[in-house]
Amino acid sequence: MEIKIVKQILAWNEDVSREIRASLAEQKICLVNIMGSPGGGKTSLIKALIEQLRGHFRIAVIEADIAGRIDAEAISALGIPVVQLQTDGACHIEAQAVREMLPLFPLDQLDVIFIENVGNLVCPAEFDLGEDLRIAILSVPEGDDKADKYPLMFSTADALVINKCDMLPHFDFRPERVEQSTREINGKAVFFRLSARTGEGIPELAAWLSGRISQKKALGGFP
Amino acid sequence: MEIKIVKQILAWNEDVSREIRASLAEQKICLVNIMGSPGGGKTSLIKALIEQLRGHFRIAVIEADIAGRIDAEAISALGIPVVQLQTDGACHIEAQAVREMLPLFPLDQLDVIFIENVGNLVCPAEFDLGEDLRIAILSVPEGDDKADKYPLMFSTADALVINKCDMLPHFDFRPERVEQSTREINGKAVFFRLSARTGEGIPELAAWLSGRISQKKALGGFP
Repeated sequence: MEIKIVKQILAWNEDVSREIRASLAEQKICLVNIMGSPGGGKTSLIKALIEQLRGHFRIAVIEADIAGRIDAEAISALGIPVVQLQTDGACHIEAQAVREMLPLFPLDQLDVIFIENVGNLVCPAEFDLGEDLRIAILSVPEGDDKADKYPLMFSTADALVINKCDMLPHFDFRPERVEQSTREINGKAVFFRLSARTGEGIPELAAWLSGRISQKKALGGFP
Repeated sequence: MEIKIVKQILAWNEDVSREIRASLAEQKICLVNIMGSPGGGKTSLIKALIEQLRGHFRIAVIEADIAGRIDAEAISALGIPVVQLQTDGACHIEAQAVREMLPLFPLDQLDVIFIENVGNLVCPAEFDLGEDLRIAILSVPEGDDKADKYPLMFSTADALVINKCDMLPHFDFRPERVEQSTREINGKAVFFRLSARTGEGIPELAAWLSGRISQKKALGGFP
């Protein structure tokens, strides 16, 4: 499958995310913004979710990277439509870039679009991309103090995924610490402990996401 | 030991890093900028280096975080002078902030100052802080594709540290891949494979750093 490449335009404004949200409400497509540190497992999680959800929903992916197209190639190999956004050094995606990429997909044949944001626990959280859901990933090797040290990402997440839980025996990491810190700054987040590598916990996240995608399809948005 | 806290001023200009470099050359203090992803092991590495180097050099630390003072408290507990920089959401440090913090240290009693940058594999690499050395840390759980995906950090490092090497049996990570990718974009970097947790490989990094600090003390700079 061909991988389209778009260069990010840095001109961005807040109206664009509203425009995206209105447009995708009409088209009843659920936009999911996946954020986390470099190497936290964003691509692996998307691949695992594709396997779980592809029988039920029509999926596409926007892959954002500073450089290269390694992740887009991995997604494309699954036969899923993917657009690679190269940010040319920028540490996040802006809504303008999403608006430019959406028409490159067959929107009338999609139910959900995953955005894999640039690996970064800071800047991506500042930019509303018109998404319906934000999933923040923290992986066990990163340490359980990250919600205290990088609060914005954790305070704005709809779901917090603790990934690489198969590595819990090897690290001094208490999932309940991160979840408690997140609860203190975020009244809406739901929590998942999983391993994208082993597949443990993936069905639970997929079930939650299925519910949200179905709701978007039925209502055109969340109440 | 009291921890001083400074709020970062975002006004920054390139002249400031030159000013810092000139000032520290005169004072023969080596400034070491340590960068890497959240949870990559920056604080643990600094603590391990303090243990190795404190008998030979007089050390201070600048800790930068979006919020909080967890890392500064860990360093302060070792009896090392530390200033906590809170960036108030900013994803990197700028030279202006370093210039403001330096006078808070007893500069005539120091040989080396470590800066622990904000956990971020992207933005910190863009800002020259007047440092003598840049040490980039990549930890094994982050994956061996990071030099390809976040090239600026790797292309500007004087030393690339691969941390958490005690975890190599548990991850599909080839150190030689990262080192080769780095060599292709960086002609000067030296490489260290280590574990800040077990201490394996720390003496080699400390020996290299000792040589550089001694050179700065002798010459006021690097040729």
